[in-house]
Amino acid sequence: MSWQDKFSLDAKSIQASEIRELLKILEDPEILSFAGGIPDPDLFPMDRVKAIRDAMEEDPVSDRQSMQYSQTEGFAPLRDWVAENVSTPLNRIERDNILITNGAQQSLTLLSTILLEAGTKLAVASPTYLGALQVFGTRRPQYVTVQTDEDGIIPDSLEEAFKAGATFFYTVPDFQNPGGMTIPEDRRREIIRLAHQYNVGIIEDTAYRALYYDAPPPPSLLDIDCEFVGEGNWQEKGLVIQLGTASKTLMPALRVGWTIAPKVILEKLVLLKQANDLHTSTVNQIVTFELLSNDLDAHVEKLRNVYRQRKDAMLDALRQYLPNSATFTAPGGGMFVWIMLPEGLDAKHLLKKSLEEEKIAFVPGGAFYADEARHNTLRLSFSTCSPDVIRDGMRRLSALIQKEHLAKVA
Amino acid sequence: MSWQDKFSLDAKSIQASEIRELLKILEDPEILSFAGGIPDPDLFPMDRVKAIRDAMEEDPVSDRQSMQYSQTEGFAPLRDWVAENVSTPLNRIERDNILITNGAQQSLTLLSTILLEAGTKLAVASPTYLGALQVFGTRRPQYVTVQTDEDGIIPDSLEEAFKAGATFFYTVPDFQNPGGMTIPEDRRREIIRLAHQYNVGIIEDTAYRALYYDAPPPPSLLDIDCEFVGEGNWQEKGLVIQLGTASKTLMPALRVGWTIAPKVILEKLVLLKQANDLHTSTVNQIVTFELLSNDLDAHVEKLRNVYRQRKDAMLDALRQYLPNSATFTAPGGGMFVWIMLPEGLDAKHLLKKSLEEEKIAFVPGGAFYADEARHNTLRLSFSTCSPDVIRDGMRRLSALIQKEHLAKVA
Repeated sequence: MSWQDKFSLDAKSIQASEIRELLKILEDPEILSFAGGIPDPDLFPMDRVKAIRDAMEEDPVSDRQSMQYSQTEGFAPLRDWVAENVSTPLNRIERDNILITNGAQQSLTLLSTILLEAGTKLAVASPTYLGALQVFGTRRPQYVTVQTDEDGIIPDSLEEAFKAGATFFYTVPDFQNPGGMTIPEDRRREIIRLAHQYNVGIIEDTAYRALYYDAPPPPSLLDIDCEFVGEGNWQEKGLVIQLGTASKTLMPALRVGWTIAPKVILEKLVLLKQANDLHTSTVNQIVTFELLSNDLDAHVEKLRNVYRQRKDAMLDALRQYLPNSATFTAPGGGMFVWIMLPEGLDAKHLLKKSLEEEKIAFVPGGAFYADEARHNTLRLSFSTCSPDVIRDGMRRLSALIQKEHLAKVA
Repeated sequence: MSWQDKFSLDAKSIQASEIRELLKILEDPEILSFAGGIPDPDLFPMDRVKAIRDAMEEDPVSDRQSMQYSQTEGFAPLRDWVAENVSTPLNRIERDNILITNGAQQSLTLLSTILLEAGTKLAVASPTYLGALQVFGTRRPQYVTVQTDEDGIIPDSLEEAFKAGATFFYTVPDFQNPGGMTIPEDRRREIIRLAHQYNVGIIEDTAYRALYYDAPPPPSLLDIDCEFVGEGNWQEKGLVIQLGTASKTLMPALRVGWTIAPKVILEKLVLLKQANDLHTSTVNQIVTFELLSNDLDAHVEKLRNVYRQRKDAMLDALRQYLPNSATFTAPGGGMFVWIMLPEGLDAKHLLKKSLEEEKIAFVPGGAFYADEARHNTLRLSFSTCSPDVIRDGMRRLSALIQKEHLAKVA
């Protein structure tokens, strides 16, 4: 039997990426990787996890319930924590606005299913989060791309996209993956104004929002939307859906994230989540809740201190070693620095060289574009290496870039 | 903004079920519930879980890795365990045939996305698993229903469905949810023969297969398919995809299940799973693997002994109390007994009465039909109550059925 003949159109649209193949080499322990957007496991709060598990085991009835089926919406105290965390004086977000998902990635999947049709016009930044493009792609939307600069989304370009008929706009406003840019407050206000003018729904992905190393980021698009529509009006008039996750501040393998949305959306998402996988792991939700609701600030402050040093080490080294023909972003948080190579250099080719000659890995930037990929870009992550290793890696990578550039212009 | 106007066609097809609303009342601790198809938490192997966690904590590096991102395909030793568990002398199932999912429910979701298009003809039993209908429904297939008797799927009716153009057939051959029926070996062989004759893909859901209380069930459809296509040919010629889960034999909140499929399917599923939620919780996969690979037989034997008593108590009480105008199935395993009420009685109406007058809950059968629902059916689960409670519940429910029947015919 030919299974391929039986694949749906959506299935046919799903293709293995070249990057996925290239990065399989990361399993080699000799590779120095700046590729993964992953937290450092040495910073995981394992002592707290142990204490939480021990406390759970002392109450056998609820310990057993932590392994039982539970309601699709999620663990109520966790939903309450999320609601409390995003409520503002102008707008109360309630438990019924929160759905717990398997990481923010599943939030994107559920939203894609209920909001996207083949051909739906969807605005995304150039570049944007690869995982979002992967899941949107399974619904075969028509992308309308929005240009960015060092301050993220350019409002004029966004208005062009809205005029071109975009129904939804997906954005990572804080320390963007992959670019590292943060959208300033004035642009955020303009984004919300334009979205209301053109009646466009916004999906705001806040994965990196808590990981700031200099100043906290500006108010979220959700905050500004609540202010824009006026006190108490968000349930009816709000157009921002916000996604959050415990993967970056706590631990990815809990697979706990959430969607914050007006109730009309949330009810539909709950029905779909129930059909898709019943609910997120009960025990993992309980552990997440306990971690979020006790001493979170101290834990996140510790992350900030460690990641800040790594970020600074990467930026200092790039300032010192990267040839002037290449430029890079200077993020105030998150995990990523974005490099624009001289025109004519191809980051995929550079990766092959880099793996062969320096055993250094990064992610070529082309995959982060919904269209018109710029292949002379690449993403570096500073989250898992020590400052010394980062400095050494940047020195060697910069030398390789210089060598490749000189070979090109020679 | 009107979000409803922006919903996709798939979203519009997702509707809240009446049952979901009715059964919300189950949170009332005074309700005696035969509704949920859930395992008894008193049987969860919590001591083993504690021992596994303690052992993990003794190796801090791998303990931290258990909370890190991991590969989409799943934890390799768990995939190997599944492969070993389903391999036969005639056919080696390999690690690359296994994808770990968030329970078998997510396996259904991923398969629905890659195999179903709006309008795809999909054969399902009448009745069949409600959760499968819910997820298939999000893809808007065209159902072709297959009649059943006390031995499950009727082959002549299946051939009619295949002649009518069904592309896929979903089935729960062992101790079916909801009907409790098990398909005998001769019918299984006929199903595989017909599927090859008509070139139909089969999705075999083995959720209850290990929970047999009398004899073990016949060879799986996957086993028979391997035999049918001949030694070593399944990768190329097999047409059975099998789903399994740890939810019924171990604990549901681990949210660990798996898909066993030829590689051409599996590769597509992995890409989709990566887009949908990256991977299943690493720590939960490790705990599942440890539980499955150590003393599983003794644990499952304990489950069988407890559930057997409950099943026997339910069947004995129904034989004693249920009016002859109603019939019931006599399952050899699983969790469910299916009751056919006298014609003209409506199980949804009966549930309202039952909740009001007896505080007893069950699931009306109508929701388990893809079309032409028989509303005089209901599903009882014996998995969570003691034999005494079951006997008392069946006596009272039977009396109510008798009363309603007499009122109807009077």
